[in-house]
Amino acid sequence: MPIGVVRSSLDRRTDAPRRPDDGPPAVLEIDERFAAALAGVEAGMDVFVITWLHEAVRDVLQVRRPPTGVFATRSPDRPNPIGIHRVTITAVDGTRVHVGALEAIDGTPVLDLKPCIGNA
Amino acid sequence: MPIGVVRSSLDRRTDAPRRPDDGPPAVLEIDERFAAALAGVEAGMDVFVITWLHEAVRDVLQVRRPPTGVFATRSPDRPNPIGIHRVTITAVDGTRVHVGALEAIDGTPVLDLKPCIGNA
Repeated sequence: MPIGVVRSSLDRRTDAPRRPDDGPPAVLEIDERFAAALAGVEAGMDVFVITWLHEAVRDVLQVRRPPTGVFATRSPDRPNPIGIHRVTITAVDGTRVHVGALEAIDGTPVLDLKPCIGNA
Repeated sequence: MPIGVVRSSLDRRTDAPRRPDDGPPAVLEIDERFAAALAGVEAGMDVFVITWLHEAVRDVLQVRRPPTGVFATRSPDRPNPIGIHRVTITAVDGTRVHVGALEAIDGTPVLDLKPCIGNA
């Protein structure tokens, strides 16, 4: 059950950058049903955005040569294509959460949002 | 669809420590179907374990006083109770992945495993 959706200028998976920090700024459009859960979410916070990488191929277990298990990689193609994106919130406008560099494409479902504590 | 399960001496949610680093060592029992996806997962790696916090209450939107939105907290009670746990792998024995301090309780479903890169 998504809590919202990514709005980004990245349209296609093939456009997604290799390095997360190279992504463009984006907006997380949170569903109005969850507005109350945003109380205290503010500009300047570092958060993990958890996404469902909906274009992923889920029956891929190994990638590359030599073969490497997907659990040893950050490949989006994996049994449960969950994305973890560490971003900084730049503004909150109602249920629209503006964030810095994010490599997820437009339309990616958002599953959760939680503050970073230290390095995790 | 879980890819495995946490085995831990932590039996009950009320026993889970407040600070992640205070959790006991644990074992991730990965389903044999996903054995190939573990190729390259090795002792010494820092990984994110992504879990489904199955005992969470999903209709909680705010916690504490003053009321704080769950997206501004790490409360397990949230619309999609996904746990992110940064752990160090201490050993890999077939499909049993031994990890350091982990605050998830015994029986917690594991959704994904991915290497940490820098601080994310």
